[in-house]
Amino acid sequence: MSTTTHPLLDRIHDPADLRRLSRAELKGLADELRAFVLHSVSQTGGHLSSNLGTVELTIALHAVFNTPEDRLVWDVGHQTYPHKILTGRKDRMASLRQLGGLSGFPQRSESDYDTFGTAHSSTSISAALGMALAARQQGVERHCVAIIGDGAMTAGMAFEALNNAGVADANLLVILNDNDMSISPPVGALNRYLAQLMSGNVYTRARDVGKNVLKNVPPLLELAKRLEQQAKGMVVPATMFEQFGFNYIGPIDGHDLDSLIPTLENIKELKGPQFLHVVTKKGQGYKLAEADPVAYHGPGKFDPKIGLVKPATPPKQTFTQVFGQWLCDMAAKDQRLVGITPAMREGSGMVEFERRFPGRYYDVGIAEQHAVTFAAGMACEGVKPVVAIYSTFLQRAYDQLIHDVALQNLPVVFALDRAGIVGADGATHAGVYDIPFVRCIPNMALACPADERECRQLLTTAFEQDHPVAVRYPRGAGVGAVPLASLEGLPYGRGEVRREGARIAILAFGTLLYPALEAGERLDATVANMRWAKPLDTELLLRIAATHEAIVTVEEGAILGGAGSAVCEALNAAGVVLPVLQLGVPDVFTEHGDPARLLAQLGLDASGIERSVRARFGEQAQAGARRAAA
Amino acid sequence: MSTTTHPLLDRIHDPADLRRLSRAELKGLADELRAFVLHSVSQTGGHLSSNLGTVELTIALHAVFNTPEDRLVWDVGHQTYPHKILTGRKDRMASLRQLGGLSGFPQRSESDYDTFGTAHSSTSISAALGMALAARQQGVERHCVAIIGDGAMTAGMAFEALNNAGVADANLLVILNDNDMSISPPVGALNRYLAQLMSGNVYTRARDVGKNVLKNVPPLLELAKRLEQQAKGMVVPATMFEQFGFNYIGPIDGHDLDSLIPTLENIKELKGPQFLHVVTKKGQGYKLAEADPVAYHGPGKFDPKIGLVKPATPPKQTFTQVFGQWLCDMAAKDQRLVGITPAMREGSGMVEFERRFPGRYYDVGIAEQHAVTFAAGMACEGVKPVVAIYSTFLQRAYDQLIHDVALQNLPVVFALDRAGIVGADGATHAGVYDIPFVRCIPNMALACPADERECRQLLTTAFEQDHPVAVRYPRGAGVGAVPLASLEGLPYGRGEVRREGARIAILAFGTLLYPALEAGERLDATVANMRWAKPLDTELLLRIAATHEAIVTVEEGAILGGAGSAVCEALNAAGVVLPVLQLGVPDVFTEHGDPARLLAQLGLDASGIERSVRARFGEQAQAGARRAAA
Repeated sequence: MSTTTHPLLDRIHDPADLRRLSRAELKGLADELRAFVLHSVSQTGGHLSSNLGTVELTIALHAVFNTPEDRLVWDVGHQTYPHKILTGRKDRMASLRQLGGLSGFPQRSESDYDTFGTAHSSTSISAALGMALAARQQGVERHCVAIIGDGAMTAGMAFEALNNAGVADANLLVILNDNDMSISPPVGALNRYLAQLMSGNVYTRARDVGKNVLKNVPPLLELAKRLEQQAKGMVVPATMFEQFGFNYIGPIDGHDLDSLIPTLENIKELKGPQFLHVVTKKGQGYKLAEADPVAYHGPGKFDPKIGLVKPATPPKQTFTQVFGQWLCDMAAKDQRLVGITPAMREGSGMVEFERRFPGRYYDVGIAEQHAVTFAAGMACEGVKPVVAIYSTFLQRAYDQLIHDVALQNLPVVFALDRAGIVGADGATHAGVYDIPFVRCIPNMALACPADERECRQLLTTAFEQDHPVAVRYPRGAGVGAVPLASLEGLPYGRGEVRREGARIAILAFGTLLYPALEAGERLDATVANMRWAKPLDTELLLRIAATHEAIVTVEEGAILGGAGSAVCEALNAAGVVLPVLQLGVPDVFTEHGDPARLLAQLGLDASGIERSVRARFGEQAQAGARRAAA
Repeated sequence: MSTTTHPLLDRIHDPADLRRLSRAELKGLADELRAFVLHSVSQTGGHLSSNLGTVELTIALHAVFNTPEDRLVWDVGHQTYPHKILTGRKDRMASLRQLGGLSGFPQRSESDYDTFGTAHSSTSISAALGMALAARQQGVERHCVAIIGDGAMTAGMAFEALNNAGVADANLLVILNDNDMSISPPVGALNRYLAQLMSGNVYTRARDVGKNVLKNVPPLLELAKRLEQQAKGMVVPATMFEQFGFNYIGPIDGHDLDSLIPTLENIKELKGPQFLHVVTKKGQGYKLAEADPVAYHGPGKFDPKIGLVKPATPPKQTFTQVFGQWLCDMAAKDQRLVGITPAMREGSGMVEFERRFPGRYYDVGIAEQHAVTFAAGMACEGVKPVVAIYSTFLQRAYDQLIHDVALQNLPVVFALDRAGIVGADGATHAGVYDIPFVRCIPNMALACPADERECRQLLTTAFEQDHPVAVRYPRGAGVGAVPLASLEGLPYGRGEVRREGARIAILAFGTLLYPALEAGERLDATVANMRWAKPLDTELLLRIAATHEAIVTVEEGAILGGAGSAVCEALNAAGVVLPVLQLGVPDVFTEHGDPARLLAQLGLDASGIERSVRARFGEQAQAGARRAAA
């Protein structure tokens, strides 16, 4: 693949170049672009299936609309590689998702063509509507287009936006990119409904007739009207989207430029909110990805000729896998356990759980708010829900966490995967704020396991409590501490001293315990594994405070309001006055890139911790180091 | 009214008593209950219109379902006074919303009949679905009913729940209590759609036929089926709710027990998700409230014979009014300003703004998530959105605040009303967490005006920034500092010393500045008005730290992660070691009741602050007080 030439693609420096191509050339461009995407992702890793699915749609949008003056808002945005390639970023695709390189999502700072940064799902209609109404207010004629997948349509905020847009009379086009797939296979009534819209030969006929009509080329508005009426008549009397006040057009074939371009050109002439239903296939054009779009959703590097291969040496067990195993084991032991995921079966490690306990597995769709309150309802009845949710996505259910779970003090376990720096996905996915935003809520507890073994143990401890507990753990693997087979927990709210040192005590929350231990060794500092951001082990803290000259807190999360501040609050409440150095993620959004390098940049590796401690407590630290060397 | 007797109502100690009454008696009970509600609310204040609207529905539900074994989940829950009265709490209604008295919302701790605590809208379907699936898992036969208003249906999480429930095959009944009204008049496509369902004589005919059919009393299932088919045939071919997988029944008259009871009895026999569309009238039976349900949504005490009267002396200007005035003035000055509210026009003080600037006023429905991302979209285009949102409701848009606004560093102003203790509405509405959850987000700023005048000034300062800024202010009035007419701001990120004292410095954030000043007087402490929780005025802080022996922080918000912790973080970062006492809301949910009394209970009035300072810094404080007395 790497030797493939792409003469047409090489001519495209921005979408204006593309708009000069003939329809036949655009089709050739699509082939080249698809090959380029496949090659590029196979070299860098990244999102594949979704990008192979949007090649033609991307070309059609840039061909028909006057980008960047017209606004494209790509929902989620992981399907924007073709868009990036066509908007002047082809040569930088090799740097994708790497430190200093292109983002895997649209970013306003990266290009004028990225009109709105996305990554979390279902924001696009709201943003595009805001743009459309801003244009109206400013007296600017401009098209604003939201491109949203069928999975993202299940989130509440997409509905909120549709409900608002349908009456706002804005020049807004919503394109439903219907590939019958979020990351996990889709669930929910909406999906069933979409399937029904496309069922049988009705859809096929609609397409054929549409093409025939287009060949006659009547005046555009007239054409659009006829096309629309025909499509409607042949599909259903009134679609849900029309009930929302949209003009519904579709479904059309999202891989057929001869359908896409004329339809978009017609729609361009229509006023008011338009809804175009486009059907695409994830992985289109690459047989392996078509056959298994889940596996090829976000692969690492691979050889396109061979496809994904199992690594010769199995990779280290991830925290996600530790959670998945624990969930199965605890479910086998306790009939009351149910597992809830907002459309993240694979990412959250629940594939095996679903297989073994299908009746106790609830995938509620991309619907974090509902997931949490649904869990609260179950907990009221004595069922014991475990909600698996990425730290960054719990932000979507913050009110439900406070209002429905914590206020009623219901025993729900939150397994917060991807806590801390997440790496290639970047700032949008960083799980950096959960310690501040969870610990300020009464009745909540928050555990921070230091390694895989503790993760399993603390999940058990969380499950045993009669109030809500969150357990946060990072993406990927830890130091490799093999979990015990048993289902025994650790004492609730208790930390431990892992290294006895002098003068300075480093209190670590979570997996940064290990670099902290290394730094502690070099500094001859005491190192404690605090394990709980809330409740804080105040007894341990005060014992340490009484015997040390200074305290250093270390956490993979925001310093502002984080676990270090919890330590300060506890010291203040006890009337203890002691120098404290708070290490963690500073008050800026972190870039995408290799997590280890990012942590080092933030001074959160062993030498960074050592450096910070020496810089702040030069004397004490040096004294400690002398003793350690002696 | 107070002399009215209610012989039937007096016989109802729990719903089992009610189930023994004849249909005719139930009708009499409805009249007595309505009179009792009106009388009761006129004595205590509280929600009126919504409760007058649910009298018959409440009676019908308790008559048909076996409560509390069957579960009723009331969305929002401010319409549950009839439910409270019928479930053994009639005699405690005089204590409603007062300290130690009944809550204005359902509370699990208050009664077994309150199966799920509600207050924020749109949680009921998720919770009831959780209960229904828990029952299925436990092998229990039980009916779970969510009662939700048409306003609450516009929030995304209701949609998420419908989308999930429609395929879950649960024995769930969703009752849409359609009164064409949230608090403000309703907006959005869904509302228009509901109006269409009920339009013309179709609805009337459906009702009449329904009644006739019911008189024949055929076998229940058969009847239900016929009734359903007829209703469907006469209304629309397929409702939106059927597209979600529900069996749609309705609309029926929610004030007619002869419709309600037989319909509910029929539905009880059906399996799978059922959707009953009930039409009620807010304020039903009290002419004044029927005519103006907005005014009678949540009145204070009044004489039912006279209705609401304008107070002889105008009440003090509230922070809400200060905001409303500022919004109009700034809009007149700056064409770019737009005002956005998630269905809180009255509560947020935007009535006048809408009147004067209708084209720049956006009520997006109960849709906080959409409101914030919609604002972000507008801000991308150079429009300057001001989002007026209660502190507690910003929790609903937390991810949008981080992911769509702060990460893109967009200039959106958030006017956070009801920050701090809110009083009668209680813990569900307390705006106690915004300082921790906002200040941990990079790029965000957060101002805490000490009084009305500063509120106006800091709103201007916020509006002048080129990044997101939130301004938090409490419910009601402050000390009465009259705002200046000008639109001049205060220096960004700067506090001020308000009282020079010795040894101890009290740093106040927000309106607790005034009790802090009083305490400072008695303690001869320095008192600073910090004004900004973020960015913190570090220069001022360090100047104070250099000249004082101890620091006291005071804020009307959670201590955990709050502004006091921001002070500690800044001291730590500067390497300054000093005793700090953090005063604020402790780590428990606060009850409902009079705000001044609640603040006193929390030690956040002048004498409470003084007491805490003396308890912690006895020596320094006494020395200061001696100096003050001298």
